[in-house]
Amino acid sequence: MTHASLALESALRQVAAEIDAQFDRLLDVPDDPRADLYRAMRHAAIGGGKRLRPLLVFATAQLFAVDKSCAARVATALECIHVYSLIHDDLPAMDDDDLRRGKPTVHKAFDEATAILAGDCLHDLAFELLAHEATHADPFVRVELISELARSSGPAGMAGGQMMDLEAEKASFDLATVTRLQALKTGALISCAVECGAILGRVPHEGRTGLRGYARDIGLAFQIVDDILDAEGDEALVGKKLGKDGAAGKETFLSLLGIDRAREQARMLVDQAIAHLHAFGPEADLLRDVARFTLERDR
Amino acid sequence: MTHASLALESALRQVAAEIDAQFDRLLDVPDDPRADLYRAMRHAAIGGGKRLRPLLVFATAQLFAVDKSCAARVATALECIHVYSLIHDDLPAMDDDDLRRGKPTVHKAFDEATAILAGDCLHDLAFELLAHEATHADPFVRVELISELARSSGPAGMAGGQMMDLEAEKASFDLATVTRLQALKTGALISCAVECGAILGRVPHEGRTGLRGYARDIGLAFQIVDDILDAEGDEALVGKKLGKDGAAGKETFLSLLGIDRAREQARMLVDQAIAHLHAFGPEADLLRDVARFTLERDR
Repeated sequence: MTHASLALESALRQVAAEIDAQFDRLLDVPDDPRADLYRAMRHAAIGGGKRLRPLLVFATAQLFAVDKSCAARVATALECIHVYSLIHDDLPAMDDDDLRRGKPTVHKAFDEATAILAGDCLHDLAFELLAHEATHADPFVRVELISELARSSGPAGMAGGQMMDLEAEKASFDLATVTRLQALKTGALISCAVECGAILGRVPHEGRTGLRGYARDIGLAFQIVDDILDAEGDEALVGKKLGKDGAAGKETFLSLLGIDRAREQARMLVDQAIAHLHAFGPEADLLRDVARFTLERDR
Repeated sequence: MTHASLALESALRQVAAEIDAQFDRLLDVPDDPRADLYRAMRHAAIGGGKRLRPLLVFATAQLFAVDKSCAARVATALECIHVYSLIHDDLPAMDDDDLRRGKPTVHKAFDEATAILAGDCLHDLAFELLAHEATHADPFVRVELISELARSSGPAGMAGGQMMDLEAEKASFDLATVTRLQALKTGALISCAVECGAILGRVPHEGRTGLRGYARDIGLAFQIVDDILDAEGDEALVGKKLGKDGAAGKETFLSLLGIDRAREQARMLVDQAIAHLHAFGPEADLLRDVARFTLERDR
């Protein structure tokens, strides 16, 4: 990994290990005809990905001294939604991808029906985790987390963005529409991760403005860099097929802005994201590192 | 509709109208590239189906004088999960059905990608509805509802049963395995509907034994009758393609028991279900009518 600070590298490794351990514990393969369903969930959920959303939950929660085991459950719930969305987005009827996180996609390693169901089950698991009292003793906190996650993943969030992305192949979107598409498709769940950290920290709504600005800006920067990696990245590092946006004739930040303005825009967003954290001291350094990482990553 | 009591007929009509009104209010089509996503959800969710699960929520909730608008939200959440599962089960990679509730399935009326996303969005909507304070003022009740629904729809419930059903085409299941398959695939959500009515009624766990027995028995009876309708029903009434189990070579209650013993078994289960309600007076007559209806229905 290039350019990641030592603190960030260590945090990414710790979070990846924690999330893998959580999934390993949650997804015990039963000795019955549902075994492949669990194997498919494990295939998708364990051992891969940057775990950016879980890291954002941890990094935000630690600003408010949230119990780590609570943050771990919420981080895992967020990752359940992210992984379920990858499984479904990779299906032949959607983006039709064979490779994800350097491994065969679930419908390739198993079959389409199992992939659809494995996604559906991880979708349920997210809410089951959040509803559990181990996530937070106060049920008001739990329902707020659930409400936030359901809104962020549904038609007004991630899934709505994916629908717009499918339409993008048929229409020619302008910059405002591409920005809205990406604010939903990628941004909603990134924002949700930060928001959930704040909810766990019992930050009142009026105290979340800076964190929300931070999340919105890194979400967009992340997507701009994704577009750049899609055009110029190394498939072996990114772990999925690249060059698909251009082939599909979709408008992206890259096609609309050009490479130089796209890079400049991402850099500006990251600076702005860091500026949103001005009220926080060194306890927010990990969030600042994450912002820089969205820009400098090569995968 | 044959054999339904007047009270049941009226209740089914009222519940159907209420659920349609809820979905109509919730699924306002936006004027943006997500329009087809919302249209697909409306296509699947509005105007069709027996609304058996919502009816069970209402009928159980009324035993405990639960506020009707709370019951309506929970009933709609249950139906969200049921409808999402129908959309995904009908996909070409799953059961590959063209007709559902007398209409083209979502992937036929729209396309596969839209169908996958519409199912995913209804899945989220269920939890968003339950988390909202309008569902119940007490957040402990809301998290209990969410926990119950997530468990019932996931790998230990409905989706796990669907996975077993896919395996049933490759294996030759015995009666115990078919019973477990159906207890998950159809039974879990039917039980969940009754359980949610009891949760809304703040019935303590130890007070739910009779209702749980009732739900388990009508769930199985419902599925046995489904198997019989699949073999002998009228496609125009049932509103979906029939004869599929036999064609797929799947073991069902019908193939394992034969028609006479299957009918006898369903009758016995319904008697048993009604016996489980012995602690209740006439306020449970609607639940008793529902039990008889699972047996006598022709659709």
